[in-house]
Amino acid sequence: MTQSQKFAVVLLSGGLDSMVAAAQAREAGYGLFALTVDYNQRHRIELEAAARIATALGAARHVVLPLDLSAFGGSALTADIAVPKGGVAAEGIPITYVPARNTIFLSLALGWAEAAGARDLFIGVNALDYSGYPDCRPEFVEAFEAMAARATKAGVEGDRFVVHTPLMEMTKADIAAEAARLGLDAGMSWSCYDPTTDGRHCGLCDSCRLRAKGFAEAGLADPTVYAARP
Amino acid sequence: MTQSQKFAVVLLSGGLDSMVAAAQAREAGYGLFALTVDYNQRHRIELEAAARIATALGAARHVVLPLDLSAFGGSALTADIAVPKGGVAAEGIPITYVPARNTIFLSLALGWAEAAGARDLFIGVNALDYSGYPDCRPEFVEAFEAMAARATKAGVEGDRFVVHTPLMEMTKADIAAEAARLGLDAGMSWSCYDPTTDGRHCGLCDSCRLRAKGFAEAGLADPTVYAARP
Repeated sequence: MTQSQKFAVVLLSGGLDSMVAAAQAREAGYGLFALTVDYNQRHRIELEAAARIATALGAARHVVLPLDLSAFGGSALTADIAVPKGGVAAEGIPITYVPARNTIFLSLALGWAEAAGARDLFIGVNALDYSGYPDCRPEFVEAFEAMAARATKAGVEGDRFVVHTPLMEMTKADIAAEAARLGLDAGMSWSCYDPTTDGRHCGLCDSCRLRAKGFAEAGLADPTVYAARP
Repeated sequence: MTQSQKFAVVLLSGGLDSMVAAAQAREAGYGLFALTVDYNQRHRIELEAAARIATALGAARHVVLPLDLSAFGGSALTADIAVPKGGVAAEGIPITYVPARNTIFLSLALGWAEAAGARDLFIGVNALDYSGYPDCRPEFVEAFEAMAARATKAGVEGDRFVVHTPLMEMTKADIAAEAARLGLDAGMSWSCYDPTTDGRHCGLCDSCRLRAKGFAEAGLADPTVYAARP
């Protein structure tokens, strides 16, 4: 790490996408400030994955920030609502949507970045093989950047905060292939919304299905242990 | 409370401004979902003020959400940096600025509002007698609304989130007078950034000086107990 190294705040959920986005930030020369939010998610096992990944990528700092979004309710990921397992994507935005989650997470990343003198944020959202969440789309990210320019001291003083979304136009197969190209052990990451009690991916939720499909379409071995074949 | 009552999420810090904004929301017919963030602020005594005010205003719910922004550092309000007491406002944005604080707080309010079916947020920012924070200006609030429309399921489906800033164009004297008009006990609120150990307003920080000036210019008795005369 050189004195002139630039740092980026990277949102690191512990999933495959955020692992690849973080590794891309590192490849681009950024030191990593990794931010994981413990939002009382049903799939808390992803927090362990985030810690493994932060260590493996040599993050300069890893903050796991407790923030109990279940106080607000309204999502299958935080409230007592069943995670859909049907496999046929429902119309519209699914019940696993957490209201304003990426807005909240990027706002926290923005606060850390400004405090630490960083101007770059990375988030592993993608608008192709995604689950239909509004806060994974380019128009959301652009609106967030515009807001950040007006919200911050650094923005008012003429600096620009950039939200990097290197996976935005990638399919899950592209992401699986990119993980392989970067030499990442995809088995370190966690995708499942509804883990089994013995710590396996369920294999049936939307997130498991997308993950398995990505490895299959990329022609790569899937290191994931699924309780049921997706 | 009628079945058809509309609810608003109100950011309630415990200060005079947020108390007045919350009371205005109630006067406008909204049931109150009051949100207070325990961000490990130096002036934690304001959390007690928020609880008093939520009770006095008959809030339907009051959530005090722990969120340790001191993990990021960078402000005299959360880090080990002295609160300025000189009384002459420094050039530019002061050290008491908390990076992205209102962005983070409004994002949390947005998440709660969407989960609860509310579309109205209230925040007691004002751009006249304020401390020079970028996230207290109308251009920030407008950019936040534009972002919220793209960030949320409700926004994508055509609903609009409105961030109400009823104090935006008011001076501190206007706000003190408005508190009196609304029949509020201003002594319930807390403004000081650096309370004495025996629970008094210091009288010397920017926030105390603005508060005292407001009551004085409004020609109203100031119920505040200051350790030093502002």
